[in-house]
Amino acid sequence: MAGMIRTDLALEARQLWLEREQTEDLPGVRVEERQREGFPVTTVEVLDRQGAEALGKPPGRYVTLELDGLLRREADAFPRAAAALGAELRELLALNVAESCLVVGLGNREITPDAVGPCTVDHLLVTRHLKEHLPEDFAAFRPVSAFCTGVLGTTGIESGDLVRTVCGELHPGCVVAVDALASRSTERLCRTVQIADTGIVPGSGVGNARRALDRETLGVPVIALGVPTVVDAATLTLELAGRAGAELSPESFGPLGGLIVTPRDIDKNVRDMARLLGYGLNLALHKGLTVEDVDLLTG
Amino acid sequence: MAGMIRTDLALEARQLWLEREQTEDLPGVRVEERQREGFPVTTVEVLDRQGAEALGKPPGRYVTLELDGLLRREADAFPRAAAALGAELRELLALNVAESCLVVGLGNREITPDAVGPCTVDHLLVTRHLKEHLPEDFAAFRPVSAFCTGVLGTTGIESGDLVRTVCGELHPGCVVAVDALASRSTERLCRTVQIADTGIVPGSGVGNARRALDRETLGVPVIALGVPTVVDAATLTLELAGRAGAELSPESFGPLGGLIVTPRDIDKNVRDMARLLGYGLNLALHKGLTVEDVDLLTG
Amino acid sequence: MAGMIRTDLALEARQLWLEREQTEDLPGVRVEERQREGFPVTTVEVLDRQGAEALGKPPGRYVTLELDGLLRREADAFPRAAAALGAELRELLALNVAESCLVVGLGNREITPDAVGPCTVDHLLVTRHLKEHLPEDFAAFRPVSAFCTGVLGTTGIESGDLVRTVCGELHPGCVVAVDALASRSTERLCRTVQIADTGIVPGSGVGNARRALDRETLGVPVIALGVPTVVDAATLTLELAGRAGAELSPESFGPLGGLIVTPRDIDKNVRDMARLLGYGLNLALHKGLTVEDVDLLTG
Amino acid sequence: MAGMIRTDLALEARQLWLEREQTEDLPGVRVEERQREGFPVTTVEVLDRQGAEALGKPPGRYVTLELDGLLRREADAFPRAAAALGAELRELLALNVAESCLVVGLGNREITPDAVGPCTVDHLLVTRHLKEHLPEDFAAFRPVSAFCTGVLGTTGIESGDLVRTVCGELHPGCVVAVDALASRSTERLCRTVQIADTGIVPGSGVGNARRALDRETLGVPVIALGVPTVVDAATLTLELAGRAGAELSPESFGPLGGLIVTPRDIDKNVRDMARLLGYGLNLALHKGLTVEDVDLLTG
Repeated sequence: MAGMIRTDLALEARQLWLEREQTEDLPGVRVEERQREGFPVTTVEVLDRQGAEALGKPPGRYVTLELDGLLRREADAFPRAAAALGAELRELLALNVAESCLVVGLGNREITPDAVGPCTVDHLLVTRHLKEHLPEDFAAFRPVSAFCTGVLGTTGIESGDLVRTVCGELHPGCVVAVDALASRSTERLCRTVQIADTGIVPGSGVGNARRALDRETLGVPVIALGVPTVVDAATLTLELAGRAGAELSPESFGPLGGLIVTPRDIDKNVRDMARLLGYGLNLALHKGLTVEDVDLLTG
Repeated sequence: MAGMIRTDLALEARQLWLEREQTEDLPGVRVEERQREGFPVTTVEVLDRQGAEALGKPPGRYVTLELDGLLRREADAFPRAAAALGAELRELLALNVAESCLVVGLGNREITPDAVGPCTVDHLLVTRHLKEHLPEDFAAFRPVSAFCTGVLGTTGIESGDLVRTVCGELHPGCVVAVDALASRSTERLCRTVQIADTGIVPGSGVGNARRALDRETLGVPVIALGVPTVVDAATLTLELAGRAGAELSPESFGPLGGLIVTPRDIDKNVRDMARLLGYGLNLALHKGLTVEDVDLLTG
Repeated sequence: MAGMIRTDLALEARQLWLEREQTEDLPGVRVEERQREGFPVTTVEVLDRQGAEALGKPPGRYVTLELDGLLRREADAFPRAAAALGAELRELLALNVAESCLVVGLGNREITPDAVGPCTVDHLLVTRHLKEHLPEDFAAFRPVSAFCTGVLGTTGIESGDLVRTVCGELHPGCVVAVDALASRSTERLCRTVQIADTGIVPGSGVGNARRALDRETLGVPVIALGVPTVVDAATLTLELAGRAGAELSPESFGPLGGLIVTPRDIDKNVRDMARLLGYGLNLALHKGLTVEDVDLLTG
Repeated sequence: MAGMIRTDLALEARQLWLEREQTEDLPGVRVEERQREGFPVTTVEVLDRQGAEALGKPPGRYVTLELDGLLRREADAFPRAAAALGAELRELLALNVAESCLVVGLGNREITPDAVGPCTVDHLLVTRHLKEHLPEDFAAFRPVSAFCTGVLGTTGIESGDLVRTVCGELHPGCVVAVDALASRSTERLCRTVQIADTGIVPGSGVGNARRALDRETLGVPVIALGVPTVVDAATLTLELAGRAGAELSPESFGPLGGLIVTPRDIDKNVRDMARLLGYGLNLALHKGLTVEDVDLLTG
């Protein structure tokens, strides 16, 4: 049954494994918890094949920021969250001073809970062309480019193929792929950010696996950056029934294809989280910027 | 428990009562099933207080069209559905030749599953001002006006108060209030239309009861026109657990405030259904129009 | 010829009169220039009938803020502009401590340069319902309500009639009507704000005069708040030809109905100015708020 | 002076040359006028270098459809216009039965008059992926893929570079590049379509020349498909002054950077024309489709 619980968060995949195995120890996975700017940060490190099979995720580091304070509208929550995200991204990116970065917005702008990637790109400070034409004026900035792949149904082209092709043309120092995720827990919707240095399989979060975007396929480090915006309807039911002590089999309630669980104000939540991801990326990629600078520069 | 199952459809409220009482006979409620333009149409008539208490709905007629063929993109499905809806609306409206109509879009345009009302208004052929200024050119049209109330959180004004005030100013022959509904069944989402001659309580579909809009408060007949766009997350869980034979108590899984279940492509579904409602209203209100005419006139 | 030059700004109407009459003195009109938060502020006061006829505007005070620094993205330009606008609004409003305010967004949300009014309403801190239900929690706030009238073509109802009706129901202490304006000068587009204590004639800025909204028709003070977003195409031509020394007659170039001149990035400009107007109103209406507070509260 | 009149339409460039040279004969350019589905169609064929220099456009065929009837909302105007556009496109494309096509939407979706390209892509029947996975079910369809390049300011990548890169990956049989154009005449705005077999220089229509997309740079035939949505503000003034008999020098009225002249309802016009271009492309690319089929298949 638990295999039917869907999540893209390594944090939740680990919890799920521990619950299922009724143990507190998962070999091959190391967990560290700390705070950054007042927000809880958890790093799940998948160390080897045993850990990877347990979590269903490739080896690497998965960093999760829990930003509940942002939704509670605490004072300064946005600048603090952007700073925390920027700092975590910078650590995983580990870029040299002048290396360029290509940011890719995955997902479908026309489907609100899938629009996190494209909407994040709207907030980026894109500089590649400015550095080419006015290298001195933009000396302090890293060359950043960005594009949105669209989705297979409206382009006829696999997102992964587009990214690989553009990456082959631009030769960036790294790629950041931004996408919407699915979580197991409704409490984490639109208030958690996961950063992983493992790359991404576009569309896997919403049930359609496509070719991977990772260091192997692209030849450069690939950071996956995502926010859970939906809980699968079957997952919600299994979870809630479980809390109530009922062990359900998903076969018993039939197919729920295409149904998702979201916050009622998902439109606003997606807009807000995309802004946060954009600001976090800008702070991570360009040295010495403040949130106010990004306000002025991206408007 | 079953009291926790939420639905705005009289059709479903009746099914729920029959399931709970384990009977096939509900006194005070008459049901009729037929076809219109190839689509199933069910009329649930609440005859008296006993029926009203059983269903939790005021006495009157509730007509439901099930439009699965529309989503399956059968040929001519849209014109047939618009014609069916127009015919059913015309019967419930029972307007005299020259009587005017005020259409009110309830709900929040910024929250996709709540935007059915405002988006329907976008497709209306509004004629009140044209008939005033060019009475001869528009002699064939009924005077129709329309407005959207917005929502309490962004206006500070109860929707019901706004409608009552505007209605007192315009003195229409009838009011049609368009709103998004909640259903019990995921299968009915965005493919069912309910028309009721009982009026409406704005916001009741999403958990906030406001003052009623009905013949008593407005002084003219009030038709409620709606489409289910969400299933309450708790309702889904209770339903699915029930199918799997587990009797859950909603207390057992805690609050799910603000979580909704929708189709993944809710944005497109709401746009499509709002267009259907607008076209159905135009056909019902103006004599002798075709879908092609409405295409040309509303663009 | 000069009669064909269209402007809704009293500042420009006066300049036009002076140019036409080739004088530097316009009786019945007093002008004062000063600075607020570093932005130039001009008050044109129409004192009597002679001044009113010369400018084609009713007697009263017209305050214009010129916010070029905002578009040049000077540091702190947004908070300074919001503070300046808030202070000027507060002076013209001259509200007592507890008096309520109704803000009305005029214009068509679907036509970008006409959407300033509705988009401003999106940024308002609306409190009327909160004060009713939780009077102690919101004691520090003024009761504010807001709504958008829509436009005659899509509602069938005169904007003025709607405002009058709603005003009669709510009995606010004052009304602020927000609308897009036309200017004579392309340099002022989307960077100038006019506040007038004279009320407004909805639609006059885009060529369709409707009934006035003013103290006489509404029974309470009516402040008009607007931003020029278009220059009429004929006006632009006459202006440019005039600069080049050519005296054109508008008849000579035929009708230009429906053509407007806007900045190329009008979508972004309208969004930005609507945000400024909303913030300015919030600062003017609620005592002791900062821009950061408004960020948190309206998000 | 006339050199300051900007137009992307070969039809207008020719008229301008004839006016300037005060002759009726332009060597190196052949013109043919006819009707298609009741709409006037003009082919301007640039035959040689002399013609190319006179018009400032590379040799090739430029076909212009004038669709005034569409805006006058004549009955059947949309299906007739889509059929006419489909037929003209099919002739210029001259594709073999199974050859694939890549459609590219150029321009900025966030700037309404520049959004024709991206919005056209929204209406395309994209089939490349379907033919790969279900070749038999989609045997009757041509493989079509599509993407939007975004704009340099938000991607940091030249549109031309993106198209060249993607084209090198997909090896289509031809490319269609859709873009917004500038015209000289306000009468042609949003009611004229130009198809050219010469390729396109992205951004040239709005003042920023980028690298060409043509048979030389892409290795396959490139059809440019566009609609004029703006008149340059300086062009309008020169034109109107000219009609009034005044010869103005553009230097005399100073820079008008970033100002455009559009119809007031440009949002709706762009949506309508993008739908027409999408439908015309679908009819041209897939054999035996009707407008009703496209309605059903693209929704």
